[in-house]
Amino acid sequence: MSPRNRSCCSALKLILLMLLVSTTALIADEGMWLYNHPPRELLREKYNFDLTAPWLEHLQLSSVRFGGASAEFVSEDGLILSNHHVGSRSLQRLSTKEHNYLRDGFYARTRGEEKRCPGQEVTVLMNIEDVTARVNSAVTPGMSDEQAFKARRAVMAEIEKESLDKTGLQSDVVTLYQGAEYHLYRYKKYTDVRLVFAPEEQIAFYGGDPDNFEYPRYDLDICIFRAYENGKPARVGNYLKWSANGPKENELIFVSGNPGRTDRLRTVAELEYLRDVSYPKLLERLNRLEVLLGAYSARSQENARRARNDLFGVRNSRKARDGALAGLLTPRLFDRLVETERQLRSAVATRPELAGTQGAWDRIAQAQSVIAQQRAQYDMLERASGFNTTLFTYAREILRSAEERTKPNGQRLEEYRESARASFEFRLFAEQPIYTDLETLKLADSLTFLAETMGYNHPLVQKVLAGQSPQARASAAVRGSKLASSATRRSLYEGGETTIREAADPMIELARLVDPDARVVRSRVESEEEAIRQAHGQIGKARYAIEGPNHYPDATSTLRLAFGACRGYEQEGQAIPYETTLAGLYERAAEHHDQPPFDLPPPWLAKRKRLDLRVPFNFVSTADIIGGNSGSPVVNRAGELVGLIFDGNIQSLVADFLYTEDQARAVAVHSSAIIEALRKVYDAGPLADELIGKSR
Amino acid sequence: MSPRNRSCCSALKLILLMLLVSTTALIADEGMWLYNHPPRELLREKYNFDLTAPWLEHLQLSSVRFGGASAEFVSEDGLILSNHHVGSRSLQRLSTKEHNYLRDGFYARTRGEEKRCPGQEVTVLMNIEDVTARVNSAVTPGMSDEQAFKARRAVMAEIEKESLDKTGLQSDVVTLYQGAEYHLYRYKKYTDVRLVFAPEEQIAFYGGDPDNFEYPRYDLDICIFRAYENGKPARVGNYLKWSANGPKENELIFVSGNPGRTDRLRTVAELEYLRDVSYPKLLERLNRLEVLLGAYSARSQENARRARNDLFGVRNSRKARDGALAGLLTPRLFDRLVETERQLRSAVATRPELAGTQGAWDRIAQAQSVIAQQRAQYDMLERASGFNTTLFTYAREILRSAEERTKPNGQRLEEYRESARASFEFRLFAEQPIYTDLETLKLADSLTFLAETMGYNHPLVQKVLAGQSPQARASAAVRGSKLASSATRRSLYEGGETTIREAADPMIELARLVDPDARVVRSRVESEEEAIRQAHGQIGKARYAIEGPNHYPDATSTLRLAFGACRGYEQEGQAIPYETTLAGLYERAAEHHDQPPFDLPPPWLAKRKRLDLRVPFNFVSTADIIGGNSGSPVVNRAGELVGLIFDGNIQSLVADFLYTEDQARAVAVHSSAIIEALRKVYDAGPLADELIGKSR
Repeated sequence: MSPRNRSCCSALKLILLMLLVSTTALIADEGMWLYNHPPRELLREKYNFDLTAPWLEHLQLSSVRFGGASAEFVSEDGLILSNHHVGSRSLQRLSTKEHNYLRDGFYARTRGEEKRCPGQEVTVLMNIEDVTARVNSAVTPGMSDEQAFKARRAVMAEIEKESLDKTGLQSDVVTLYQGAEYHLYRYKKYTDVRLVFAPEEQIAFYGGDPDNFEYPRYDLDICIFRAYENGKPARVGNYLKWSANGPKENELIFVSGNPGRTDRLRTVAELEYLRDVSYPKLLERLNRLEVLLGAYSARSQENARRARNDLFGVRNSRKARDGALAGLLTPRLFDRLVETERQLRSAVATRPELAGTQGAWDRIAQAQSVIAQQRAQYDMLERASGFNTTLFTYAREILRSAEERTKPNGQRLEEYRESARASFEFRLFAEQPIYTDLETLKLADSLTFLAETMGYNHPLVQKVLAGQSPQARASAAVRGSKLASSATRRSLYEGGETTIREAADPMIELARLVDPDARVVRSRVESEEEAIRQAHGQIGKARYAIEGPNHYPDATSTLRLAFGACRGYEQEGQAIPYETTLAGLYERAAEHHDQPPFDLPPPWLAKRKRLDLRVPFNFVSTADIIGGNSGSPVVNRAGELVGLIFDGNIQSLVADFLYTEDQARAVAVHSSAIIEALRKVYDAGPLADELIGKSR
Repeated sequence: MSPRNRSCCSALKLILLMLLVSTTALIADEGMWLYNHPPRELLREKYNFDLTAPWLEHLQLSSVRFGGASAEFVSEDGLILSNHHVGSRSLQRLSTKEHNYLRDGFYARTRGEEKRCPGQEVTVLMNIEDVTARVNSAVTPGMSDEQAFKARRAVMAEIEKESLDKTGLQSDVVTLYQGAEYHLYRYKKYTDVRLVFAPEEQIAFYGGDPDNFEYPRYDLDICIFRAYENGKPARVGNYLKWSANGPKENELIFVSGNPGRTDRLRTVAELEYLRDVSYPKLLERLNRLEVLLGAYSARSQENARRARNDLFGVRNSRKARDGALAGLLTPRLFDRLVETERQLRSAVATRPELAGTQGAWDRIAQAQSVIAQQRAQYDMLERASGFNTTLFTYAREILRSAEERTKPNGQRLEEYRESARASFEFRLFAEQPIYTDLETLKLADSLTFLAETMGYNHPLVQKVLAGQSPQARASAAVRGSKLASSATRRSLYEGGETTIREAADPMIELARLVDPDARVVRSRVESEEEAIRQAHGQIGKARYAIEGPNHYPDATSTLRLAFGACRGYEQEGQAIPYETTLAGLYERAAEHHDQPPFDLPPPWLAKRKRLDLRVPFNFVSTADIIGGNSGSPVVNRAGELVGLIFDGNIQSLVADFLYTEDQARAVAVHSSAIIEALRKVYDAGPLADELIGKSR
């Protein structure tokens, strides 16, 4: 809550809040709050907790953004804790046929053994600045949506570049409240991240797809890294102290992380689009990929290793989206969203000063329907669902870089802005294994998908296939391309257009063939998105005028603060306790006769006798999280780490649209389980000591 | 070849044949020949084999239709040999949580232990009569497509009923050459079929999905039943003698079975529909089901058991259709189909007497495009992809029976004709396990699919969902329905409309809600199919006039004769020998570290030392087969059984459209491997003795 509103009467606030969240609890533990707009009053009212600026700043500076997910510093020597499934991309990249770290785990007994992760950088949010006025001033009345989009893009690039030049910090302008506000986020970056410890995937992801998004749960979903600076462990001023005992039932806890995306402020028209078009089509693609990668993986252990991380990601998304779609198809839930919009629109209609806002919903519906018509092409061409290979991604990045870099910074496609350049190059040049068979399979299948979606006789499809079958075309492009080599990527990228043309790499030529159409459809979609942003800007202001400031924006993959209590729930008449224990793990394995995915890794069988089976393993809380929060710390009032978020339960999958408190829960690994496992299963006493702050 | 053409010059025939098959071998081993139109001349020319009437009749009467697949009598006491994957539905139905015969196999050591298979009947084709003239005479000029369809349906029902009444044999009028000919097939039926032997699924389907449709191969894909009559083993006059040694390389062999469906005589417009619409949409549904059933199966061993047969079927179809679609997307192959049509149309254009045929292709294209528009509704409503539960199938059958039985026989929907009644009731009343959780899952998912496909706001979708989520609606319908009980099904079926209405079974009420729309879309599609049939009738006559009679019709799930030679092939520069050995099985398991799906069942590990590893296991031939041929006997010149068809290789998956001989092969279990395994792995000496004709 921002300072200017502090003087308001708390009782009124409470009533307002009750109105806002009237369909859930009296005052729900709802919200993914901005760090520059935290729920101070709410915490004071409900939990008698005084959210001080130093407390908040410490948590902010201890929080780490790790890829699209979350993590935190947990030692003064730069140890970073996150989830196994967040670290899995690095584990996959570091693995070979001989050393399968993703499956078998890893432990660096000395700092010398810590393994640098190619392409992995992490960032820490240093500060936030509201730049709404400057961004909006670039858009003037009378501009078309396309002009407005370009003007906004230009001013955002300018702000970011200025900030980067001035502070040396990575600087991103973040669009909040669907376009009602713009804040500048500045990040410190660490580009030398090394792997310290990972357990076996089978205990990190115990129960596999069946237990994913379920509770009770028994997962050691952790992965530990260390940030380095100048070749030495980073000395970080802010890190989370380890809690000796973890959380108690009903205890207030906080979650600090980077929730990826929610759609809670979307209009009904936008939600209908998600329900009727976007999610079904996404799921169609995910089902297709799950079958493709599953069949490939079944052919040999080495295939399974190569496709493991992709397959995990696909299954995880599929289960999450299935749950979200089921939520949208549940009238009891969807009707609440419809009713919320109806109330807001009614309120707007009664205020003459908001007359200009009344058309906003229809403008959004109109823009959304244009986007719906463009969806297939946009997805196939611009999002490259028709060209599903890492090599195509590289090809397009190299091709577009050469073109975009010749333009003024403010006119470039967003991802080619100067402020993003360092990270872009870091990723593009990172070494990673590329498997010809797997890339060919994925490309052949996606070219088939392209033909099915756009029509076999579509001129572009015919050009892309060039008289060949998808299989033959994919094979030629993958085998002919040199982009699997990091050195080649670098030399083409640095060489620019002439060098690229001379190289005649077939994957780049494929990207070139597609690029004009891809850019056209992107531009059309972006114009409509701008129209939606402007309309949401109006709605956001109206909501502020009517309901006051107690809002958090939809998730945007940026740092947010959530809070809640550790609390069980009832499911089909059964009480689900808030925490599980190590004993429960062994019971679940026995119940399933130790058959996959309920089998236990060898050390967990061998070391069972040493473990204190009463130690809590996983626990749930009412904190408001979503995908991207994976790896977030759970901290107590003292700011100590009591757990590590790794999942939500099945009832939480509607959180994309709606926070519900009856049954939806965030699932975390208990801090005590981590220490117990490190010491007794993995003989990693020194690492446990570092976590709990014992001097080595 | 029919007798009337025997006098033609053989050399001319040869040339004609070469023209017809000019793009494959000189004279290819192509064809799924009618038993009343066998390739006598071709066999004489190419293999110097005299196909005598007694030889052919013996093979026909030894051949058995088993569900949608094939089988054969192999002892005078009615032993029936087929594939494990053909018997799997019975194995699934006979299994319980305690006895998983599908996974663990079964052997009846005495006749008393042989287990009757609920709902399983088999038929033997007794004779064939050409009724083309009578069927066509019912359709008179000036009739609309809808009238023509009704007239044809009526006369076919009349012919079948007459034949049934006269002969007591099941009588089906079969549409051949897409409607150029109609033949009446009469079958003797056995309704008491008992399970005698099945190996473990893991050896029957060794290599699982990865090895499915691949070669070299190591599968004991067999299942042995016995036909009973009047409670005693059926004494069958015709059965196949067992070959002592199996086939030699390059030896002529024959395959007698029921290929399900091919599309080789389809026009390019129809093939484009398959390529661009039908196959992609089918695969979308199969992918969806594979993910759904796979996720369900992973939750527990009991779940896996319950869904096993469904999941196998889905994966098998998916891989087959993937291969077929890849073929249609291969210009080298598709262009051949285009060229064949072009040549025929050119030839038609030069013959004034065929002027009336010229428009046939366009009429087909027109009808096909109407069908394309109806496809989604037809698939969802009439084919019930939107209501994917066995209970819905029962519900509709009971509902429609009550309505259709009040109509004259000739006006009923095809499946409610009197001639089909006995089999219909046999199936409807058969006991089978129904699992509430699995049926609910399938129905909830398919209701979601319905909403996605027809649109959530479609009035019928809204009526179907009735204000509930797909999950809630499915749960209510499945839990509320009594149709899992065979006795309930019988009493509702026999009670008729009033009884049904009074029962108010929620699944029947759901079927009733959908039925008007389902019938409308079915009727529209059937009218267009009639238009296509008429046009194909013209094309068929023109083809006959131009190219002579050396054609076999597309597969129609009826008995056909194929032939070929046992021959290896080359693949990616490597020679693939025509047969594998038992030794190869153990090598493949070792190569994959005995990991699933390459692990071996316990008896195969325990009895390894007893086996003669030189015994041939699987072999391939050039015979022209397709899905439905599973379980077909492979016989030699002497009419002895040398093998059992169970698969085609990956190159054969284009056989839907095109026979190719370079690499496409039919895959069979070698007769010697069956005897070796029965004696040494399964201690089933008496069964082996019965197969080889040794008196017990």
